Amino acid sequence: MKNELILLKLGGSLITDKLKPFTLREDVLKRLCTEIRDARQEKNMALIIGHGGGSFPHTSATKYQTQKGYVNKDSKKGLSVVCNDAAKLNRLVVEELISAGENAISVQPSACCITNKGKITDWSLNNIKKTIKDGYIPVPYGDAVLDKSNGCCIVSTEEILGYLSKELGAKRIILAGKVDGVLDSKGNLIDEINHKNFKEVKKHIHGSDAADVTGGMITKVEEMLSLANNGIESIIINGLKPGLVKNALLGKKVRGTVIRK
Amino acid sequence: MKNELILLKLGGSLITDKLKPFTLREDVLKRLCTEIRDARQEKNMALIIGHGGGSFPHTSATKYQTQKGYVNKDSKKGLSVVCNDAAKLNRLVVEELISAGENAISVQPSACCITNKGKITDWSLNNIKKTIKDGYIPVPYGDAVLDKSNGCCIVSTEEILGYLSKELGAKRIILAGKVDGVLDSKGNLIDEINHKNFKEVKKHIHGSDAADVTGGMITKVEEMLSLANNGIESIIINGLKPGLVKNALLGKKVRGTVIRK
Repeated sequence: MKNELILLKLGGSLITDKLKPFTLREDVLKRLCTEIRDARQEKNMALIIGHGGGSFPHTSATKYQTQKGYVNKDSKKGLSVVCNDAAKLNRLVVEELISAGENAISVQPSACCITNKGKITDWSLNNIKKTIKDGYIPVPYGDAVLDKSNGCCIVSTEEILGYLSKELGAKRIILAGKVDGVLDSKGNLIDEINHKNFKEVKKHIHGSDAADVTGGMITKVEEMLSLANNGIESIIINGLKPGLVKNALLGKKVRGTVIRK
Repeated sequence: MKNELILLKLGGSLITDKLKPFTLREDVLKRLCTEIRDARQEKNMALIIGHGGGSFPHTSATKYQTQKGYVNKDSKKGLSVVCNDAAKLNRLVVEELISAGENAISVQPSACCITNKGKITDWSLNNIKKTIKDGYIPVPYGDAVLDKSNGCCIVSTEEILGYLSKELGAKRIILAGKVDGVLDSKGNLIDEINHKNFKEVKKHIHGSDAADVTGGMITKVEEMLSLANNGIESIIINGLKPGLVKNALLGKKVRGTVIRK
């Protein structure tokens, strides 16, 4: 039987200190990598791990307004700098996964894909398919990339994992952040979001806790809801709570917000 | 007029201390990046800069015999480790190019290409073409990649630059190492190697000064000689001598070994 392919996102604000530039939350990352390894030792699964940029590319992406495209004479320098900053965190994540015993391999989005208005249009997937087939864990990440309409843009981890899940036929995405899931205005967890309740729920969704160049929680939910139409179920969980990522990978019921059709 | 596209290799043993693992020759790299920027300020040119891995992936590539493919149960771990080690040096090179004022963007070969017996067979070049067109400097590097026949292999910077020069129609490759060019058994510089004199010259070529998982000087010359059939001229120069890389980029006559048809 072919192993299930699961896509896991480690949020940028989960694995870095969003308020201190280039500051890894080493203890959190280390524990998460251990949970991933433990889950894979318990059960065969194919995995793609994407991660956000957090405080690594955050300062430069904001400074150069990379999300808006080529807006001034520094925009191209900006793209180079943001790509470099994003890749620095990727090195640390891959290094930690390898230390935990996983055969992780970086996947640099800016070398692989082109977007149009922030949506991935070109990505030859021969490499990533072979990487998964051979048992490795590909590790893409939120990155600055070339954009057909705007020159450049930020491609979010959600966009990347969404694209890959559709193209590779994955059915499950786990988004690990630093909150319990999607919270309403009173701070209560919303257990499930679907097309039926989204309109109502949207009014009460609490925004992202920090400025985020790729949009806050609502954008994430909308992206996941659009994927739900392709039969892809997502769950947003709290990666700060030990055991949740492991249990979610194993398909166990965990506290979080499920987004399904 | 379209700018000339030049491919420049910075040798691994030029920019790292081959005898000390993970040791950058920071002063050399810094000067070379300045020369590159100065040359580009003097004359418009499109540029791809590839670099070898030197002492960064050398230890792991040797330990895991990555060049030989999947040879034992540790080979897949080996591929992950070597890719990670090679990417570490790439970060430093791109960082230094950006510091010098160049808009450099990494190109991770293990995310982009697949080889068959060490020769690149699959590489979708949309990204790198757009990167060059928009005025950036793509920076690929010698890396460990997936191989159709052997599972994995090391793809050398020469193989990468050779492939790109053919596919992108470049006519000039500059290989900067830490010797004056190809030396004969007496240590004298061979000014030119072509198909006519190669057989004779080969007998006297002095090997690489250090163990090299991608083959020594003879392999490099053979690769360049094969490219010469496609009208691509290469020159091997000494990157330790200040000014040579700059002058070579500007098309000036410099001391070195020219390899042409």
